[in-house]
Amino acid sequence: MERVPVLKIGDILLVSIQIDMSDQTAVTLQEDLAERIVATGAHGVIIDITALDIVDSFVGRMLSTIASISKVLDAETVVVGMRPAVAITLVELGLSLNGIRTALNVERGMELIAATREDDFGLDEAEDVESGSAATSA
Amino acid sequence: MERVPVLKIGDILLVSIQIDMSDQTAVTLQEDLAERIVATGAHGVIIDITALDIVDSFVGRMLSTIASISKVLDAETVVVGMRPAVAITLVELGLSLNGIRTALNVERGMELIAATREDDFGLDEAEDVESGSAATSA
Repeated sequence: MERVPVLKIGDILLVSIQIDMSDQTAVTLQEDLAERIVATGAHGVIIDITALDIVDSFVGRMLSTIASISKVLDAETVVVGMRPAVAITLVELGLSLNGIRTALNVERGMELIAATREDDFGLDEAEDVESGSAATSA
Repeated sequence: MERVPVLKIGDILLVSIQIDMSDQTAVTLQEDLAERIVATGAHGVIIDITALDIVDSFVGRMLSTIASISKVLDAETVVVGMRPAVAITLVELGLSLNGIRTALNVERGMELIAATREDDFGLDEAEDVESGSAATSA
């Protein structure tokens, strides 16, 4: 059976979807991800869909489910790498990817996850850290 | 035609191979990678083969070619995520993956690339830069 690999980078799990998802692959991916989040204490899940030509309602639902599961396990999910044509088709089909956050690419996804966690822990602390590094790198 | 996505994370390009590579997919991947290395100035290429059940001589040669192309473009290549069974089969087949560096997972691959670059620039300079940035961000 085909299995989508889950890669760990820092406290983020990265999944790059390249194969056609069947019911079974989707369930396996959800289980793998949930297990890895618990095992690694990851705070974010980035799902890359650069390779997908089509995001239909099945894939959309799978993404929503993954986002919901991750949320319960205290991890943010961001979908990245959506092609322009996929976005157009999604809107034309009336699929809105409810509850799913998106970013342009993996790096922006990582920034989004980091920013969200800073918000959660209180802005003051986060601002101090940010302005400190900005001042020294200038 | 299927295409393997190339993801950029910092100054590293990450490729997760999940589909069966044909001649055409392999050539496209080599071209995509070469273009992205030049476009982004990436210093490292990490190829994840977690999803591969078999690494035959064709895939082995493709990995070697990618490593050679990257080298010419001043980027280190590290293959990560090889399964134990794949390693055993490789040795049994007498394939040695010449010129290819490996690491256990993506994170160790990133460390290996970072360590190699420090060596290239001379340890003293690298240490200066590191301690410098550490001091300013503290």
